Amino acid sequence: MSDTDPLVIFTPSGKRGRVARGTPVLQAARQLGVDLDSVCGGRGICSKCQVQPSFGQHSKHGITAREDALSEFNAVEERYDRIRGLKIGRRLGCQACIEGDIVLDVPPESQVHKQVVRKAATTRAIDMDAATRLYYVEVEPADMHAPTGDWERCCTALAAQWGLSSPTLSTAMLSRVQSALMSGDYKITLAVNEAREGAPRIVGVWAGFAEPAVMGLAIDLGSTTIAAHLTDLVSGEVKASGGVMNPQIRFGEDLMSRVSYAMMNDGGAAEMTSAVREAINTLAAELALEAGLAITDIFEAVFVMNPVMHHLLMGFDPVPLGQAPFALATSSALDLPARDIGLTLAPEAQVYVLPLIAGHVGADAAAVALSEAPQKSEPLTLIVDVGTNAEILLGNKSGVLACSSPTGPAFEGAQISSGQRAAPGAIERVEINAETKEPRFKVIGCDLWSDDPEFADQVLATGVTGICGSGIIEAVAEMRMAGIVDAKGLVGSPDAVGTTRCRPTGRTFEYLLYDGSAEGGSVISVTQGDIRAIQLAKSALYAGARLLMDELDVDQVDRVVLAGAFGAHISPKHAMVLGMIPDCALEHVTSAGNAAGTGAQIALINRGSRREVEALVSQITKIETALAPRFQEHFVAANGIPHASDPFAGLRAVVPLPDPHFTSGDSASRGRRGRRR
Amino acid sequence: MSDTDPLVIFTPSGKRGRVARGTPVLQAARQLGVDLDSVCGGRGICSKCQVQPSFGQHSKHGITAREDALSEFNAVEERYDRIRGLKIGRRLGCQACIEGDIVLDVPPESQVHKQVVRKAATTRAIDMDAATRLYYVEVEPADMHAPTGDWERCCTALAAQWGLSSPTLSTAMLSRVQSALMSGDYKITLAVNEAREGAPRIVGVWAGFAEPAVMGLAIDLGSTTIAAHLTDLVSGEVKASGGVMNPQIRFGEDLMSRVSYAMMNDGGAAEMTSAVREAINTLAAELALEAGLAITDIFEAVFVMNPVMHHLLMGFDPVPLGQAPFALATSSALDLPARDIGLTLAPEAQVYVLPLIAGHVGADAAAVALSEAPQKSEPLTLIVDVGTNAEILLGNKSGVLACSSPTGPAFEGAQISSGQRAAPGAIERVEINAETKEPRFKVIGCDLWSDDPEFADQVLATGVTGICGSGIIEAVAEMRMAGIVDAKGLVGSPDAVGTTRCRPTGRTFEYLLYDGSAEGGSVISVTQGDIRAIQLAKSALYAGARLLMDELDVDQVDRVVLAGAFGAHISPKHAMVLGMIPDCALEHVTSAGNAAGTGAQIALINRGSRREVEALVSQITKIETALAPRFQEHFVAANGIPHASDPFAGLRAVVPLPDPHFTSGDSASRGRRGRRR
Repeated sequence: MSDTDPLVIFTPSGKRGRVARGTPVLQAARQLGVDLDSVCGGRGICSKCQVQPSFGQHSKHGITAREDALSEFNAVEERYDRIRGLKIGRRLGCQACIEGDIVLDVPPESQVHKQVVRKAATTRAIDMDAATRLYYVEVEPADMHAPTGDWERCCTALAAQWGLSSPTLSTAMLSRVQSALMSGDYKITLAVNEAREGAPRIVGVWAGFAEPAVMGLAIDLGSTTIAAHLTDLVSGEVKASGGVMNPQIRFGEDLMSRVSYAMMNDGGAAEMTSAVREAINTLAAELALEAGLAITDIFEAVFVMNPVMHHLLMGFDPVPLGQAPFALATSSALDLPARDIGLTLAPEAQVYVLPLIAGHVGADAAAVALSEAPQKSEPLTLIVDVGTNAEILLGNKSGVLACSSPTGPAFEGAQISSGQRAAPGAIERVEINAETKEPRFKVIGCDLWSDDPEFADQVLATGVTGICGSGIIEAVAEMRMAGIVDAKGLVGSPDAVGTTRCRPTGRTFEYLLYDGSAEGGSVISVTQGDIRAIQLAKSALYAGARLLMDELDVDQVDRVVLAGAFGAHISPKHAMVLGMIPDCALEHVTSAGNAAGTGAQIALINRGSRREVEALVSQITKIETALAPRFQEHFVAANGIPHASDPFAGLRAVVPLPDPHFTSGDSASRGRRGRRR
Repeated sequence: MSDTDPLVIFTPSGKRGRVARGTPVLQAARQLGVDLDSVCGGRGICSKCQVQPSFGQHSKHGITAREDALSEFNAVEERYDRIRGLKIGRRLGCQACIEGDIVLDVPPESQVHKQVVRKAATTRAIDMDAATRLYYVEVEPADMHAPTGDWERCCTALAAQWGLSSPTLSTAMLSRVQSALMSGDYKITLAVNEAREGAPRIVGVWAGFAEPAVMGLAIDLGSTTIAAHLTDLVSGEVKASGGVMNPQIRFGEDLMSRVSYAMMNDGGAAEMTSAVREAINTLAAELALEAGLAITDIFEAVFVMNPVMHHLLMGFDPVPLGQAPFALATSSALDLPARDIGLTLAPEAQVYVLPLIAGHVGADAAAVALSEAPQKSEPLTLIVDVGTNAEILLGNKSGVLACSSPTGPAFEGAQISSGQRAAPGAIERVEINAETKEPRFKVIGCDLWSDDPEFADQVLATGVTGICGSGIIEAVAEMRMAGIVDAKGLVGSPDAVGTTRCRPTGRTFEYLLYDGSAEGGSVISVTQGDIRAIQLAKSALYAGARLLMDELDVDQVDRVVLAGAFGAHISPKHAMVLGMIPDCALEHVTSAGNAAGTGAQIALINRGSRREVEALVSQITKIETALAPRFQEHFVAANGIPHASDPFAGLRAVVPLPDPHFTSGDSASRGRRGRRR
């Protein structure tokens, strides 16, 4: 290009260069590597290549753009504007030609790889690069003199017009391509899935130029809940989100009871497989309906889930996962037709399943790793995804380790005397006054603390029905900070603690949190048994983290990330007082929200991220807690609150941790007072 | 290797070389590029690597093999011999080690790429190289310390033990691999389809070392008949052959009536698709039963068929094939799962469909080209596959042309007054004495000529019921040679011909071939209408051939090959007298039998041949007869017997072709005599 050729500057990318006078904007964008979309291939039909020219003086860019820097509206643009309307100031990039120096803004909707800022807890931006894209092609009509098939001419057009080579398709889809070519006068719009670079597959076809909905489903298949987001694969917009209970619960509450069900019952695994597939189909249909779409508008689904859920969904035998050596049928990421696992989405919809890390560390943990990217972090980062099984990742740029630890369901409110799932009426937050030992709390569904005068009225609708996972964690931690529970986890007697809220029950004491019996409501206490259950769970979690720290030979981590839907509700301070996580500056303990679900969303809308997570998982060092000789030792030491031997000096510096020493309230010792220091 | 290392010579390949002393025979074979089979990977289980050593002096090879040139029987060989028996003189190649100069014969059953000489009409030998092969692998057991999936360890084993990389499989197959690994103690036998080099797909799995039947089906799907051969993909042996009527006949006798049915009836095409798929499943089950096998032992099917049968089988719309521009949905060769077209073979069975040449020239013609290989021929070769539609190939090493010509069903006995399908009782051969004008004939199901004294007795079982395609061709040609029919195709009057076998019927004459009316049997004549029908059919065939010759600017071909099941029964001399084919030395007119079926068989057992036919078809020049201006001209000229203008000098030199000139026997001319020369 010579210096007299027009200079064109694209924003927001800042890419600039000189192009020959008369070059269409779309072509200039391609020459300069600017991300400007086009579905119709420059025919002035799709309007995906819209740009916004800026005329006048641009001192920042050092040019002056004259009014005639772009060619005038041509017939194609005028027709488009008349029929479908063009926003004021906008031009069709495939029609407007560059005649002079100009600044052109590419609005987000004209970018293929636009950034999508998720609304969820984190604000990480993801570049759109969905595997499924639309292509409009004009195919040569059939010609007796050069007899090739419709499909072969379609391939020629795809290669010439879009550079797509060697596409594949099913015979059923080929039949649909044949009829679309006939009814569309050899013009068709194709949905192409190019999940693997260089291996495009035709997954949808429409006669003529079409703008069909092309949706994807990101599914976080948990043992308890199946959560899904329906996302527009063109705009990246989330159209609907929702969840249903995993119907496998009727075969067993937790993972191991489902594995047992499969082991003990012929066809039991298949029964659970059908149940979960049906639930996913129902959920997909509901989300599509909510978004005003059809289930057949869904062309992709991405799954994250733990290994047992994974095997039950895919139809693999989960029984080997129930015992050493915890052999997975496959650990690789999977690409497969949705119909192969009984999903009734678009007929040619494709499924991507994130890789599993190990027999106990699933694709959900891989999704957390994708979302949180510990391998890109300078600080040593500990990520715990708290659920029935805690998945733990530890690492930084030097490498990442993973393990899982069998916390059991206590953190979800199970095995707790007044425990319940997180639902309206459940106590979710607790504070105890260290002087008076009086508690106050909040329940789900009500914004007021329980000591607010209006609380009683506002809580009438739900009542105070129990205590959920985050509630029990806060309660025990507050009891520890208020001197009601000692470092060993014993609840003190009324005398020792100095409150009648401590009440004897059999050989131990409990702490009365709420007494609604006068109004015919429930009585909610934290019993010695509840505390033991929480101790077991948190010891397992802490021991797993310690095991990974041992591998790296460190006593300290720089950052802690709490992941999991439940992680979002845990207060970092309380988690640390309880000794769920290692000592760390409190401001470096953060919640990542449902990081697994975020990872699924990322993998859905950005196919490059799939290669990223596959590479990451293959490089993760897997530690099997069941095999580690020091696990038991760490587990026992972690029984203390916060810990029997680790100092937790950082925590003690900012949080009061009185050190009473109680004895258990059995008949022999009930009369004795705990020593006070 | 030094000169003192043992010299090993493999027969029949003649490959030779020195190997280190102590090298196992299997390893030596691999080093020297000798084709020696092994399924178990050298573990002494499968015995596929058996060799036959020859001891003593081999002056031909210049060595003397001492008795100790091979290591002694080891424990593995002894166990194999004890349990399963080893033929005398045989050794297991994976166990016997080379200790001195030796000649080793590799028997055919130990060769992977053994030659299969087909028993059919031609004796062309094909190298076995089936797409589907068995591999025995020993997989590393699961290990908690290195948690990978069963499938990933299986892939590692396949790569290490067999050099197979990146195999794929369905999730259903993965589930079966998982359970076979468990029940087979991590030893499994896999059936792998590697139809495309470098893209192996797992299609079967068995626990432990297994020798399952691995069958393939070569299917010639004709408009009238579906013929199939069930072939062992390991040995190449045909285990069962058979055919059924194409049930689509109930929707229309010929191709165009089926296309009309699809056009006129909603769902008509789908109905025909179901019917033919069901018939193929039934035929496959019958053949498997006959061979003592299950339909699920069939892992591959290869199809050859004309474009309409192709589209109806695949579920494509056949309607475009009924009118210009005769657009095919696809012309490429197809690889697809058998279940995609409703075939109930092995769950993961794969189908290969040969490419179509053009809208009227199908995969059956491609199969003929594969079988007859005109592109490898020095002499210019004309290949005609005679059926309802004649497919015509013309070419040699310089290039190949193809067209089809609408002969109609006259050659199959349809549209003939006494015509019938080739079945017992049908006249199939005719001779007419040129002096007496008396005929004799043979019928299907009886070896005697009709003038044999015992004919009447022997033919009682079937009777003489009609005349089939080859019979009518011979009859008309013999009538021409005996001066009963003139060059224009007119049957002479009794007076003109000099026999009362010529009888008036309305305004024309007929020739009485057989009168069984005295015994209550049929009366079989060749009518003027019959001759007209044959003339139309043969003119179309000849005009098509001439059109291709025009393209090459030749008046003569060097060789003529008659293909098609019907082609096998046509006498070359009679075909030429009739003018079905151009003049050519009679000894260069041969029959290729069912060349399309042979092509299907070749593609089934040799995957390289699939690439060969795909390349060939892409290079064939397609001529559309409907578009050629000279077709009509050629057609009219070809109406003469043998031809109105082409001299047929070669034919006339060896065959008497009297030239009477008859007039038609209408009322105005019935009294007149035809001129005699």
